[in-house]
Formats: sequence, structure tokens, C-alpha cells
Amino acid sequence: MIRALVIGRFQPFHLGHLSMVKKVIEDCDKLIIGIGSAQFSHSTSNPFTAGERHLMISRSLEDEDIFDYYLIPINDLSVYSEWVAHVESLTPPFDTVLSNNPLTQRLFQEKGYSVREVPFFNRKEYSGREVRRRMIAGENWQELVPGGVAEVMDEIKGVERIRQIARADRYVE
Amino acid sequence: MIRALVIGRFQPFHLGHLSMVKKVIEDCDKLIIGIGSAQFSHSTSNPFTAGERHLMISRSLEDEDIFDYYLIPINDLSVYSEWVAHVESLTPPFDTVLSNNPLTQRLFQEKGYSVREVPFFNRKEYSGREVRRRMIAGENWQELVPGGVAEVMDEIKGVERIRQIARADRYVE
Amino acid sequence: MIRALVIGRFQPFHLGHLSMVKKVIEDCDKLIIGIGSAQFSHSTSNPFTAGERHLMISRSLEDEDIFDYYLIPINDLSVYSEWVAHVESLTPPFDTVLSNNPLTQRLFQEKGYSVREVPFFNRKEYSGREVRRRMIAGENWQELVPGGVAEVMDEIKGVERIRQIARADRYVE
Amino acid sequence: MIRALVIGRFQPFHLGHLSMVKKVIEDCDKLIIGIGSAQFSHSTSNPFTAGERHLMISRSLEDEDIFDYYLIPINDLSVYSEWVAHVESLTPPFDTVLSNNPLTQRLFQEKGYSVREVPFFNRKEYSGREVRRRMIAGENWQELVPGGVAEVMDEIKGVERIRQIARADRYVE
Amino acid sequence: MIRALVIGRFQPFHLGHLSMVKKVIEDCDKLIIGIGSAQFSHSTSNPFTAGERHLMISRSLEDEDIFDYYLIPINDLSVYSEWVAHVESLTPPFDTVLSNNPLTQRLFQEKGYSVREVPFFNRKEYSGREVRRRMIAGENWQELVPGGVAEVMDEIKGVERIRQIARADRYVE
Amino acid sequence: MIRALVIGRFQPFHLGHLSMVKKVIEDCDKLIIGIGSAQFSHSTSNPFTAGERHLMISRSLEDEDIFDYYLIPINDLSVYSEWVAHVESLTPPFDTVLSNNPLTQRLFQEKGYSVREVPFFNRKEYSGREVRRRMIAGENWQELVPGGVAEVMDEIKGVERIRQIARADRYVE
Repeated sequence: MIRALVIGRFQPFHLGHLSMVKKVIEDCDKLIIGIGSAQFSHSTSNPFTAGERHLMISRSLEDEDIFDYYLIPINDLSVYSEWVAHVESLTPPFDTVLSNNPLTQRLFQEKGYSVREVPFFNRKEYSGREVRRRMIAGENWQELVPGGVAEVMDEIKGVERIRQIARADRYVE
Repeated sequence: MIRALVIGRFQPFHLGHLSMVKKVIEDCDKLIIGIGSAQFSHSTSNPFTAGERHLMISRSLEDEDIFDYYLIPINDLSVYSEWVAHVESLTPPFDTVLSNNPLTQRLFQEKGYSVREVPFFNRKEYSGREVRRRMIAGENWQELVPGGVAEVMDEIKGVERIRQIARADRYVE
Repeated sequence: MIRALVIGRFQPFHLGHLSMVKKVIEDCDKLIIGIGSAQFSHSTSNPFTAGERHLMISRSLEDEDIFDYYLIPINDLSVYSEWVAHVESLTPPFDTVLSNNPLTQRLFQEKGYSVREVPFFNRKEYSGREVRRRMIAGENWQELVPGGVAEVMDEIKGVERIRQIARADRYVE
Repeated sequence: MIRALVIGRFQPFHLGHLSMVKKVIEDCDKLIIGIGSAQFSHSTSNPFTAGERHLMISRSLEDEDIFDYYLIPINDLSVYSEWVAHVESLTPPFDTVLSNNPLTQRLFQEKGYSVREVPFFNRKEYSGREVRRRMIAGENWQELVPGGVAEVMDEIKGVERIRQIARADRYVE
Repeated sequence: MIRALVIGRFQPFHLGHLSMVKKVIEDCDKLIIGIGSAQFSHSTSNPFTAGERHLMISRSLEDEDIFDYYLIPINDLSVYSEWVAHVESLTPPFDTVLSNNPLTQRLFQEKGYSVREVPFFNRKEYSGREVRRRMIAGENWQELVPGGVAEVMDEIKGVERIRQIARADRYVE
Repeated sequence: MIRALVIGRFQPFHLGHLSMVKKVIEDCDKLIIGIGSAQFSHSTSNPFTAGERHLMISRSLEDEDIFDYYLIPINDLSVYSEWVAHVESLTPPFDTVLSNNPLTQRLFQEKGYSVREVPFFNRKEYSGREVRRRMIAGENWQELVPGGVAEVMDEIKGVERIRQIARADRYVE
């Protein structure tokens, strides 16, 4: 039995993420998708709650008839040395970690895990940062995300939120 | 759109839980299943990690072809007044809470949620406490849980763990 | 300048507390009233939030034309060795601590504070425990508390809450 | 009954704050003044403890014969989604939130609160940042704060502290 | 290179602990002594701070010319699944764990460590509980501890503290 | 009895630290060496765990036949007002604090401690920052640290770690 773990912030889940999931899920029995920085929300770089991101990802994968995954919120810890144990306690046991982040790679390697690179496509355009920038600027962000994400964004008034919060970044106390 | 939330500790998930899920899922578009006391494990009353319980529940529901649910670990907080907001941040938005616990009911009611009782069947036998007692005593616990739970218990060596921990309860420092 | 500190849980503030405050406030320029176990609420022994207790105490003291006090919520810490520093950071500087609890007395004495006993009257009847018991039992609790506390209890539906929570104590998982 | 909430860091409380309080307190029965970032002190941007700020504000408002307020320390949380519930547990119930910070406005609006702008006068000069700058530079900061704040600053040796800490900002490990 | 880890609460360090250390230190290059429940103090079962226990142990081992050890405070975590990683981050790498506590044994075994029983002598008399009982009762506790521990107890007024705290256990709020 | 406290991050322990310890240990009965920012590791500025730093320091001092010290990990707190109490609970009682950091100096002075400057030699070259820079750049870092530190670095594969993590600093999400 092969289970692989991939962790992202998914702020929000976009077509690059979807394409990545489709590719890596072929090679494993079950893919564990960790929603990273789960405790953060309502900032311009982390606008959406873990629950809202859970909804976006589930909806998008359901629309693609993908069900062989576990979706699990994972908090950031500032104590890096305990983070792998933290992840292990929240997820089903897994064999392989997929990550391009050298710190994540190192932390899992030191605990004996096998680590592989994640295949990403066109990272410049299909990035959370670009989607958020377009939301704030009033440009076309919808073309970068699955239809399910746009639906959820409507339900949670996500664009209204990120625009309001973006003004807070310029707020002088 | 109707989403309902039900929270349990699922230590472990048993046939009473399964029967409850089957009943309540009929009345909602999606059922949000919260794995409560998520941070606790390795004690006789909370032997299994959130990740292990995630695996048990997913496996059992997959075997029943049930997919219209979200499964989400939820930590206990000792600060009860912040707990509903904590739950809200981790889950998709929901309308209704299913719970028989008067404290849980009160906390959600004070935040304006509609609360309903959970239909349970034969709570004396189909209870986490009874399953754990049988595991420790070496009796037939398998008949109280779905087949998927027994499989996971094998994979994670769960019975070996709870028996060893039970000795710790009698350990004198 | 003499400032004294007295800490109570005030679950709820009752006539015994009021009588104590009237007595000790005569001997100091300002009395610092700490609302202890501030983070806890919604349990049978700690039913009311820090904010609700703040309101009860302010209302009761205003009705008595008492204004020479500071009212400050103070969380419990399980790390006792840091608790005095925690209190110091939340309160104006003070000279004297009023407490009958030997642990509280010890913690402040080890940091060099002068500690004095608190004069309490008829502790058996005028106790938070007795007020809460009467609320749950449907007996006359109003005669044990200042009028302002009864008003606040109405506003926050406090009796309804403690009765509902009391059922949780008998709830079997 | 109308209660309004306004939250500031008050590092330190200055004449702009005092003028704001006088204005908004006319429109409400009681004003709840939250001392924000309560846990932070001893840095150049947050030099004073919550208790010291409590003393400064009480002294200044007493000198103005203002008593219709509640003064409550409120910790910052990094988990924004739980912050409103955190505030609610510490304060008496309130109807309206006064804030110019778009993030604060958003957080309270999402929980259903009515939010209004705070009227501030001459924000460039009457700002905590300017008072602190003058303290460090040895310029006239006293003209920017109420007399009570200057008294407290003497009692707690506040200017000595901020000057010493300012040297830490230039300290190379 | 062989390093072994043994964890105790050492409330206080007594002759049974000393005898155990002498025995196990023979079999390893370096013994890592973890001071468990490090954050707790000022209660009847955990009266002494981690720093005070550090002093007691160092003094006692120095008197015996024992130096081949590392002495490290280790906090209790309620999240058991992260505790081994927590210990690992605080200690030099080790091969073997010495413990008689089935929970501790299980936690380290699940992370792949070899675990061995600790040889204790006359546990009924030489126990922290008995030493503390004698301190409170005014009986001869000195005969149960190394001379260095009695010296430290004098320096920190430890007996005075535990007696005062013992009265708190009978304190009614 | 004179005990002095000095706190450093020791990332890693270098010849400047060693020279400082040798100098200050002459003036005290016992030197308490606090390993600061103990909870942090696996970043380019804090690459090594508290346990690894414990090992480096012990090994280096043992090689110099220095034993009159206590070595204690100390976590950073963001709540500065509680930090001195935190340190006090972890260490044996002490009289004097050695520090060049104005914030550390202030915090201990406000609690009544005597504070002295630390004599450092050639801080530009003998600095943790320079050692880490050379490790990442592949230059000669060994000449800046005691032999014991280089040995430990081999055992824990420390250079491999910091180089891998340094790539994470350039990682774009």
C-alpha cells in the first residue's frame, strides 16, 4: 500500500494545484493532501480559513471524480523540530512526501522519509499569489481556478474579504 | 444547501457511529464529521491519533459507498467560549449541529445555531468505551466495529498499543 | 500610595464579596480586583465569562458608589512559577496582596510581596458554590447577590445556561 | 442599552485618544475600551505593559470625571478567525464596534456586528509613534499626553525604559 | 558511542534515584537525565522548580564524582504523539531509553527506540512521595536523600514551601 | 555563593564563546549557561536544536576541563514581561546576569538583578553569523570553533543541514 503526502497552503486552490493532484494521484493508492498554515486566515497572503479551503478542494476534486485522497488541515508550528511528529499525528501513515520546499524536504528526510519533487506546470501564472493579486486588482482570477473554487468564493464572499483586508495593509495605526 | 455538523471522538469508530451517519446523511447535502479531541492519543480513553481515526472512518464509509461528507480533526480547547469559532474556522459553513451533549448544544445555541439530537442505537453496547474495554480484556471487539476499522487496527497495531497503555494506568511512579 | 490586590473567581459576585470589597477598600488608595480563572466559562463551577463577571462587579460597585478600584481579568496558568509575573504585567503596580489561599500567599511571598488575610463573613452561605447550587436547583439565589448581579444574570440568560450545562455533567459519551 | 467597543494599543494613551473617548462616549451608555496587544511590552513599539496602560487610561479619565467605561486588556491572537470570540469572552456584551482598521472591521462584520469609523483629530502629531519618538529623542512628549499619563510615566520609569530598549534595536548579536 | 536516556520528575532527587544513576551509568558513555514535568512546581506533588531540581541533582552527582551525564529539563505535553520529538529536540542523540512506565515505553518504541527497564531498589521507601510526605509531616526525610539535596533544600527553603502549599490542598474557595 | 547567568543562542558555540566562558567562570562559583531560543532550529539563523547545542557546549568545555557550570535550555517568549520568571524557574538561583543586550539587561534590572557587560573578543570574526556563513559558502568554519563542535557537527550532519535549509530561503512558494 502506497500513501503519499503533499502539503500546500492552497490560498486558494488553483488549476496548477489541480493538475499536480491529477498527476501524482496516479502513482499512489491514496494521496494525503495537507492544508498547510491551517490556523491562518484573513490576511492578504492567507485570506481563507482552513474550512473554506477544505470546501474549495473537495468541490474541485469531486467535479473531476477524484475521491482517492484524504484532506487534512495542518497548523504551522514555529518549533520546526516537532512539526513532522505533528503531521504524523494528524494523517494516516504514509510512505512518501512530495515537496519542493528544501526545509520541508529536510525535516522529513531527517525522520527517515523518502521525499520527491512535485511536478508543477507554469508556476508563474498558476500561483496563489497571482490569483490573490488579480482578486484585489479586480482582474480575471476565475480563469486560473477550477469552477468549484469560484462557486465557493461566491458563497463565502471571498473576494470582498481579500479586498477589504488589502486596505488594512495600508492602514497606519 | 444544507450542511450539518456532528462531532465525535470516534475512539474508535464503531457500528453505532456508522448507523448514525447513515441515518443523518439522508437529511443533508453534506455531513461534516468532526473528529473531536483530535490532539489526544495514546491514553486508554483516547488511544488513537486523529490521523488513525481519519483512516478508520474513511475506510468504513468508503466500504459503504458513502462520500457526501467532510472529515475534519477538531482539537479540544479548555477555553470553551472560543471553541465554536475554532470549529467554524476548520469546517465548511454549516446550518445545523447534531449533538446530544448539553454543553456542546449550549455553546452552539449561544452562537445562533440550530441544534438537533443525534439518533443513537443501543448505546450501551455500541460505545467506544465498550470497544476499548474488550480490546484490553482480549474479548471480541471486532463484532462492534465495521470491517474497515478492524483492518486499520491491524495496520497500526492498535490493540497492542491500548493493552500496553492500560498497564500504565496501574503504574506507580 | 497604597494599592492592594485581591483576586477571586467571582462565579458569581455575591454579597460576601461585596462586603469584603467595602471593608478592604477603606485601607487603600485603590483596590485592584483581579477576575481569576478568566479564561474559563460554561462549566458548572465556572459558568460565566470574564466579561460577564466584569459587568456584574462593575454594576454592583457602581450601585454602591464605589469607584476606587481597577477591575482586571487574570488567566490561570498551570505554570505556577510564572503566575506572579503574569499578574504583574496585567495590573498597575501594587504593594499588598489580600488572599486566604496558601498557594497564592506563597507565590507572592516568594516574590517579596506583603500578604494579608481577607476578612470574609459567613463563608458557608455567601459562597459562589452555594449561589450556583441554588441556581441549578431552582432555589432563591437572588438573596445572596447584589441587585446588579441579578440584572446582569437576566441580560445574559445566566441561569438558563448553568442549568443546561449541569445536565452535561451527567452526560455519558 | 447601547454599549460600544473601541480597541487601541495606547502605547501610550495620548491627547488624541482622550479627545476620541470624550466624543464617542456621548453616544453610548457605556464605552468598552479594549487595551489591545495586551501581552506585549518592553519593545520600542509596545513599551508599556497592559497594567501600566490600564493605570494611564484610568488616571486620565478620572481626571476628566469620566466613569462610564469598562477598561479591558485584550491579547493579540495570530489566529484571526478566533479573535472576535476571544474579545467577546472578555468584554460585556456590546452592539457596536468603533474602528478604522479594515481588518478589525472585517472580522467583526463577518460575525454580524455593526462597525463605525472612529473620529480622530490631527493623527500625525497625536500618535503613539510620535510620543515614543519624542521620548527616545529627549524631546517634549509631555505636551501630547494627559497629565495623568506623565505622572504614571514617572512612577514606572517609562522614559528610562524606552530609551534603554531603543538601544537594543541597534544591538548586534 | 552509547547514550542512554532516563527521565524522572525528581521531586526531589533521593537515594533511590542516586543508586539507579550509579548503576545505569556504568553501561553507557553518557547518561542523559531528563527532568520531567519541568514546567510544574509549587504543588504538593511537584513542589520544586526545574531549576531547583537541576541544582539538587548536580550537587548530589558532583559529591559522588559523577560527571558523565547531561541534565536537561523536559516539559510535559498533553499531546503525547509529539512528546518524543519534543524530547529529541532538547537532548543529544541517544540510542536507548530507560523507563518502567508503559506509556513512556510505548511512545519511544513506536518511534523505533530500544527500551529497557530501570533497576530500582526498595521503591516503597525510596520514593518522592514518601520524602514529600515526611517533609509535610515533620518526620525525618533527610535520611532518604543525598546530603547535597538537603543543602539545596535549605537554600531554597523547600520544606517551608511544601508545608505551606499542603495547607492550600485543604483550602476551600 | 556567587552564581552568574549568561545566555546565548550558541548557533553554534565558537571560540569567542569559549574564551568568554573561560574569563567569566573565574569570577564565580558556578556559571549558569542558558541556551537561548531553545525551541528554534532548522532555520539558517537557528540551524541547530537545543540538544545539539547542549552537546557542542558540553563537549567543548569537557575538553578544557571546565565543569563548574550548569547548562540549561531556555525558550524565547514573546511575552517579555514573563521572561525573567521563566528563566528563574529553569535555573538554579543566581546573583548576577552577564549580558550586552540592552533588552535583556533592562528585563533583569527591573526585577532587581545586578547586570554586567560580557567581555567579548574580536566579535566580527568570532560570531555565529560568520560561522554559519562559512558553512553555507563552503569556506573554513572549523578554525572558528572548538574541536568538539566540529566533531558534533559531523555526528549530526550539521553542515549538510544548514546548506539544504539555505536553499529554502530562496524558495518561492
